[in-house]
Amino acid sequence: MSLKALDYESLNENVKNCQYAVRGELYLRASELQKEGKKIIFTNVGNPHALGQKPLTFPRQVVALCQAPFLLDNPNVGMIFPADAIARAKHYLSLTSGGLGAYSDSRGLPGVRKEVAEFIERRDGYPSDPELIFLTDGASKGVMQILNCIIRDQKDGILVPVPQYPLYSATISLLGGTLVPYYLEETDNWGLDVNNLRQSVAQARSQGITVRAMVIINPGNPTGQCLSEANLREILRFCCDESLVLLGDEVYQQNIYQDEHPFISSKKVLMDMGAPISKEVQLISFHTVSKGYWGECGQRGGYFEMTNIPPRTAEEIYKVASIALSPNVSAQIFMGLMVSPPKPGDISYDQFVRERYVSTLNIHALMKDQDLRTSMENFINSKGILESLRRRARIMTDGFNSCKNVVCNFTEGAMYSFPQIKLPSKAIQAAKQAGKVPDVFYCLKLLEATGISTVPGSGFGQKEGVFHLRTTILPAEEEMPEIMGSFKKFNDEFMSQYGDNFGYSRM
Amino acid sequence: MSLKALDYESLNENVKNCQYAVRGELYLRASELQKEGKKIIFTNVGNPHALGQKPLTFPRQVVALCQAPFLLDNPNVGMIFPADAIARAKHYLSLTSGGLGAYSDSRGLPGVRKEVAEFIERRDGYPSDPELIFLTDGASKGVMQILNCIIRDQKDGILVPVPQYPLYSATISLLGGTLVPYYLEETDNWGLDVNNLRQSVAQARSQGITVRAMVIINPGNPTGQCLSEANLREILRFCCDESLVLLGDEVYQQNIYQDEHPFISSKKVLMDMGAPISKEVQLISFHTVSKGYWGECGQRGGYFEMTNIPPRTAEEIYKVASIALSPNVSAQIFMGLMVSPPKPGDISYDQFVRERYVSTLNIHALMKDQDLRTSMENFINSKGILESLRRRARIMTDGFNSCKNVVCNFTEGAMYSFPQIKLPSKAIQAAKQAGKVPDVFYCLKLLEATGISTVPGSGFGQKEGVFHLRTTILPAEEEMPEIMGSFKKFNDEFMSQYGDNFGYSRM
Repeated sequence: MSLKALDYESLNENVKNCQYAVRGELYLRASELQKEGKKIIFTNVGNPHALGQKPLTFPRQVVALCQAPFLLDNPNVGMIFPADAIARAKHYLSLTSGGLGAYSDSRGLPGVRKEVAEFIERRDGYPSDPELIFLTDGASKGVMQILNCIIRDQKDGILVPVPQYPLYSATISLLGGTLVPYYLEETDNWGLDVNNLRQSVAQARSQGITVRAMVIINPGNPTGQCLSEANLREILRFCCDESLVLLGDEVYQQNIYQDEHPFISSKKVLMDMGAPISKEVQLISFHTVSKGYWGECGQRGGYFEMTNIPPRTAEEIYKVASIALSPNVSAQIFMGLMVSPPKPGDISYDQFVRERYVSTLNIHALMKDQDLRTSMENFINSKGILESLRRRARIMTDGFNSCKNVVCNFTEGAMYSFPQIKLPSKAIQAAKQAGKVPDVFYCLKLLEATGISTVPGSGFGQKEGVFHLRTTILPAEEEMPEIMGSFKKFNDEFMSQYGDNFGYSRM
Repeated sequence: MSLKALDYESLNENVKNCQYAVRGELYLRASELQKEGKKIIFTNVGNPHALGQKPLTFPRQVVALCQAPFLLDNPNVGMIFPADAIARAKHYLSLTSGGLGAYSDSRGLPGVRKEVAEFIERRDGYPSDPELIFLTDGASKGVMQILNCIIRDQKDGILVPVPQYPLYSATISLLGGTLVPYYLEETDNWGLDVNNLRQSVAQARSQGITVRAMVIINPGNPTGQCLSEANLREILRFCCDESLVLLGDEVYQQNIYQDEHPFISSKKVLMDMGAPISKEVQLISFHTVSKGYWGECGQRGGYFEMTNIPPRTAEEIYKVASIALSPNVSAQIFMGLMVSPPKPGDISYDQFVRERYVSTLNIHALMKDQDLRTSMENFINSKGILESLRRRARIMTDGFNSCKNVVCNFTEGAMYSFPQIKLPSKAIQAAKQAGKVPDVFYCLKLLEATGISTVPGSGFGQKEGVFHLRTTILPAEEEMPEIMGSFKKFNDEFMSQYGDNFGYSRM
């Protein structure tokens, strides 16, 4: 019997080579255990609504009305929808050419792209052109589109931080390119040293690789750090010197848990640097409705903004986007709503602010926004939930650090904690015998013992002989102590089973 | 100044090489004219809601409630939503793990995949396994995923009909594979001759191409024919003999405008053929919520079903789907609703049937379904809109055939009319001088003169020296005579300007 194209042996090797650990072996095993009736705490993926976060009411009202536009003619509609949601639904419907059931332009609705440009202008203080903003089915799809334009063959390299979010490694594999790693310094709070970058590029070039682009994830995933303005300047200067496209993954820009290191966009820093550099560096910045206090992952909405990209290239990206016709229209409206939320004085403003506060992961923005602070004061005082997420990040970091074989940097931003687990050589040996990577072995044991579903550090990349796991900080605050207690109990038992005097994996 | 990765000259050549005519030069020019205030009739893409088709109420009610689940607790909800829509919304929310804002499994919600499997079982009379059904952001994304698994390099060939829907040519270019054309016979109502297939495969092999898969589009796009059962058997036998994966693009399965050639699924024919063939041929079938009487293009919902695909391959496809996390969840619910619409006795059933009838493109299914016929009788008689779409297909075909230099097969299914335009040599000459392909030249002139936005046949492929255009049959019936009159007037003027005695393009 001859081999067929969809027999495993015969598949595109790039497909087989790509790894995507966030939904890999650990996730599959967790799903099995859940089917068998075990209670699983899914901390493998930043999926806030799945962990109990409630959607914001106002945007959901607007999109519900857009889905059911006939309600706008119903005399009772005012009994269950506020007037400003009704007005907004009419506004967004007027931007479509046939409601949510019609394909939009392949770049997204022009009216929404205009709202995104206005948001970027307010955020950065520099003009933004709607023609250079493309809406996408989530940020991941945008990243994939851009990498597809950049990667020509295996000789093309993309600089990616290690550890990294495996979207990058998986997509580069899928497209047949080469990942050029640059290491973040765990002992320096996951800082980025430009000398490391230079070394990585020099080494890649000595192997015949053309380094074409550099990825930064800011705030970091899985590492949780916020890049400083000085660091961003160094990176941009480096990209300029080396003619690299900078891909700025800024999907966690609203998820900041401290005040010392605020989020600053790559676009703003680039513009601040002035000509010639501000006119030279090709920058693509990505954002999403899936993170922040929205957490609307399942809607699949995102955008990218292009800076210093030639018009003919933008046309090519447009053409490729056209093949799949258009991003889904309801998520485009979520994006519009995210970048132009209710304003003070709007009927829904107070409720929006209250809910944003409850579900917020964005304590930092709240602290800076005097409007919000004032209107939230009573609520904050009465409910006492101030800084719940900061506290969760803190409980988790402290919990990990209370185990003598675990070290963990504090989560400054994003949604993740990324502790290093020092594994005894006996455990590494046992993992080898079981045919598992050591951190996969550890995470599987953790899952079986406690139901906590994490992602092994090897899925993100780590230095040789060093092991981590990634967990989200999203479980409810009241469940945190129990979860961390359960982790510590497991880890102690693991260490008493495998601990030995023969040494540990290195820090 | 050195070249940067996103400079046009430096882009991935596969990106630059791909063509997507449906939103190509004609569409861009039409958009410009629209901005300048000209009335444009967009018949370039099957986008029914953009041309005035109203969405079905019941599914929109259900999805609106899923978007705004807090309405389910509102005591007034029953005043604007019927009880069965409320019950269905609760049902679908119970299938999610956090509502529409949570990522689903990367293959889609298990509960919806089960409903799709039940639909396929009812349609074909054979079992269908939900584990082998993947939900996608529209059918196009599914096609792209599967072709990505199949195409390894430029030596891998995919058999594609000519004319074809350019999703296939564009995706094959993008993935760096080779399109192996097989020609449909215009003079035989766009029939498919298996001898042509054999010739195409033999020729490709002689050039060192490994033919890996075959695409059929049934009903045809842009050609509008329905494949007969006998023809499908021949195709399946051919795929079995040649070890080809069959990709069955069946997105127009509800769009049938005559009774002689009903739609029959590839899966059913394969199963009818029995072992060994029914256990041998690797088949992927695609469907969508964008077509039929739903026309929910902007929601981006689709599925594919895999038959005879090894589990390890299914795992690889699952892994690649995971990179973009999950298809959008609200479109998954539209898919669930499409495959399990209201039943007789449900509160919303009569309204659903009435609306389905009004917006239906699926006259054939209606005629066969005794339930529907009975419940529709009065409505049909009173409104007299029976067979509006059949009539539109007829008006269009007749209108084209009334021009002496145009010939056009009747649209049996799908949404398109694909007339051949015989162009005089003087017009071909003028096109050459303007640097345009002759049918692009003709379609641009048509657009400028009448506002009718079509797609040139060259975007779909056609035999050397033969020219077509594609238009949808979707404009409102009452506007059809005017549109066709306007076409005829333009064509007459074009012919009097360019007509000559030196001959025509060949038929």
